[in-house]
Amino acid sequence: MVDPIDIGTAREQVLNLLESNHPDDAVKFLMSLHPADSAEIITELESDDQAALVERLNSLELAEVFGQMYEGDMAEVAQHLNTEDLANVLDEMEADTAADLLGELEPKEAAEVLEQMDEAVPVASLMSYPEDSAGGIMNLPPPSLRRYMTVAEAVIFLKQHYRDASEIFYLYVLDRDDHLIGVVNLRAMILAETNQTIDEIMSTTVIWAHVDTDQEEVAQMLSHYDLLAMPVVDANEKLVGIISVDDVVDVLEQEATEDIYRLAQMSENSEIFSPLRRAVPNRLFWLIVNLGTAFLASGVAAMFEKTIAVVPVLAALMTIVAGQGGNAATQTMTIVIRSLALGEISVRDAWPVLYNEFLIGLVDGLAIGTMVGVAAWLWKGSPMLGIIISLSMLGNMLVAAFAGVLIPTVLKLARVDPALASGVIVTTFTDCCGFGLFLGLATYLIHWLV
Amino acid sequence: MVDPIDIGTAREQVLNLLESNHPDDAVKFLMSLHPADSAEIITELESDDQAALVERLNSLELAEVFGQMYEGDMAEVAQHLNTEDLANVLDEMEADTAADLLGELEPKEAAEVLEQMDEAVPVASLMSYPEDSAGGIMNLPPPSLRRYMTVAEAVIFLKQHYRDASEIFYLYVLDRDDHLIGVVNLRAMILAETNQTIDEIMSTTVIWAHVDTDQEEVAQMLSHYDLLAMPVVDANEKLVGIISVDDVVDVLEQEATEDIYRLAQMSENSEIFSPLRRAVPNRLFWLIVNLGTAFLASGVAAMFEKTIAVVPVLAALMTIVAGQGGNAATQTMTIVIRSLALGEISVRDAWPVLYNEFLIGLVDGLAIGTMVGVAAWLWKGSPMLGIIISLSMLGNMLVAAFAGVLIPTVLKLARVDPALASGVIVTTFTDCCGFGLFLGLATYLIHWLV
Repeated sequence: MVDPIDIGTAREQVLNLLESNHPDDAVKFLMSLHPADSAEIITELESDDQAALVERLNSLELAEVFGQMYEGDMAEVAQHLNTEDLANVLDEMEADTAADLLGELEPKEAAEVLEQMDEAVPVASLMSYPEDSAGGIMNLPPPSLRRYMTVAEAVIFLKQHYRDASEIFYLYVLDRDDHLIGVVNLRAMILAETNQTIDEIMSTTVIWAHVDTDQEEVAQMLSHYDLLAMPVVDANEKLVGIISVDDVVDVLEQEATEDIYRLAQMSENSEIFSPLRRAVPNRLFWLIVNLGTAFLASGVAAMFEKTIAVVPVLAALMTIVAGQGGNAATQTMTIVIRSLALGEISVRDAWPVLYNEFLIGLVDGLAIGTMVGVAAWLWKGSPMLGIIISLSMLGNMLVAAFAGVLIPTVLKLARVDPALASGVIVTTFTDCCGFGLFLGLATYLIHWLV
Repeated sequence: MVDPIDIGTAREQVLNLLESNHPDDAVKFLMSLHPADSAEIITELESDDQAALVERLNSLELAEVFGQMYEGDMAEVAQHLNTEDLANVLDEMEADTAADLLGELEPKEAAEVLEQMDEAVPVASLMSYPEDSAGGIMNLPPPSLRRYMTVAEAVIFLKQHYRDASEIFYLYVLDRDDHLIGVVNLRAMILAETNQTIDEIMSTTVIWAHVDTDQEEVAQMLSHYDLLAMPVVDANEKLVGIISVDDVVDVLEQEATEDIYRLAQMSENSEIFSPLRRAVPNRLFWLIVNLGTAFLASGVAAMFEKTIAVVPVLAALMTIVAGQGGNAATQTMTIVIRSLALGEISVRDAWPVLYNEFLIGLVDGLAIGTMVGVAAWLWKGSPMLGIIISLSMLGNMLVAAFAGVLIPTVLKLARVDPALASGVIVTTFTDCCGFGLFLGLATYLIHWLV
């Protein structure tokens, strides 16, 4: 019985053993842990320490540890192995993980490793699918049942063929052309009488994915139908793979992280401890794009330099109008983008969503506009200043609602990920309109302000 | 064999049948769909249409459909049932879903329903745990095996006790005090010889959760160890429940959505089509908080009114320094918050993270600072203006790195969700420092600018 271990403590123990020159003891300790924990510790070590451990692990042990790593980490650790050793490790791994690892290597290197492998064919076939499709995340299907087998025959068949199959709880039933016709879960097998046929206990309602279905859609389907696994078929409806829910958990975390990072305008590949040479350009690109739009908004404000010279407090107040508009727009845009990502709305819902957001913008705009107006009036003692900032604040909140709905929708229609570029475009609108509305109105009514 | 249906088309068919006064046909069509799809269609209907369908469904059908709904939707649909009918439906449901539904009702109403139920005790016991703990998302454990049973005896036991158990693929083994001592998966049962004992085929490495473990931590553990289910024990290490991976998929989506909405500064309960009376306050709260900080930053800028009156272009340019600082801070803050949420870093890593982000801020600050400086110089023809904006831009990027790391860390230490309030605090820093640095430097060097 185990409580989950504290990874930090375990990692320090490994480090201590390595530093005191007991690498064999470090390996022994590491192998006493759950492979998921060993994998995490290894990936966090310096390259030298990794090498010392990796050379002491056999192919089976390495295969088990690789099975618990992210793709990039596998490739990093694999650098410590020569082609032949790596091929041996890959032969022990599940085909989908092996394909993922090879996909991270240089094509030439991957080809050399494949050539040395005994089990190259299934791995190479999995490598042929795009990374973010059902084909790219599926594993090879387990050996399948036939409908006229009895349960007793099926059990014998499983004992022959399932020793090496990975942890799978659904059994698939194929017809003579290898078309998928049904599914049996293991519980039904155990509860059935041994002389019943598979045909009698199988369910013919199988929800499947095609090899080219997008991985995010697969994740949504598995979650919607509460499935633990989903079969994958090719264009001829032949069973070619299976996706299990733990692959999908990774997809969901990855897609959420991607959306979060894109909304914050940085590369979706950002990692907290990535080296400077990767982190700097990852962040810099969007900062430079933003710089362009910042100068655009600044140019709008600069058009009113004369007004600002006469009433300099406008400079301080214009930032409130633009900033609050940006905040409201970010709220609208974020809920639109997340609802699109979760499949709760589609682009066809743009009009009702816009109507809804327009109403929210109107009510919140009246509230915030009134507060800003009263505060500015009390602060500077000018009721007209209060009226000007109120009206421009309300106007900018409505701009925020429009931009927050329409820009992600247009990007989605243009098949660009709305999370990617919406932020910078939306806040350009609210900045420019915020400065323009407020300073324009102030210029028009300048004789009330001086 | 089914491809997933198009929900939109199916919903229209139901609506057409209801409008043409064929509610029985609508029910018949609805029941021909997967319960997950029927559930989605019912939740999206108007209240009248829901009532027409619900009164035509029997307890079993309703139980199946409820099993696929979110909590809030269940409670809405349950309004169409009287206490007795609802109690009958709940008796047919899985205990965890029944507990979730009752948790959504008024306490008095829930008590009345419980009183009418036949299976009230297990449901009431599940209702006693906090919603976001392991106890709150777990289901009742299935009947458990004993270590000295043979496989043949275990199969007979399962045939007696597992007909009604939900789809479970791990079997748990208890000692005489009901302590959890091992786990057997169904595949191992099928592959074993019938005269082997459970003791021989069980695994004693069971990773468990305590009833009060946070649901997000449970989700991370299941994902880290690639488990399909996790047993839950009470303070005495007795098995009291089981959490399966499909519950966790919902938790992950929910937690990611929560973080995304909190980062965008709106209530985590926001929904795209929520009624105005809920949506307006959900958004307004954070807009008002932001308004306070916006006036703070505005006050910093207003301190330099005299400088702005003399060199009004400073007003246009100060927005760039503050805005770019805010963008950089949002990048840093977001990666820190997401890495904390995924368990990739803990608060103990604050110093190395800060060092890393400081370096990124320095390099990106030099790059952006130089670009801004050159652009301002070329635009306004003043090299000193370029130098002033360069230096203050660099300074504000370093402020951004510090605030972006330290504020989420401090909030986490104070046990406040960092996603909740970091944004507003961090951008207050970069706005105030941006205005202060730029206008302060310009005031100090004003004789170079006029």
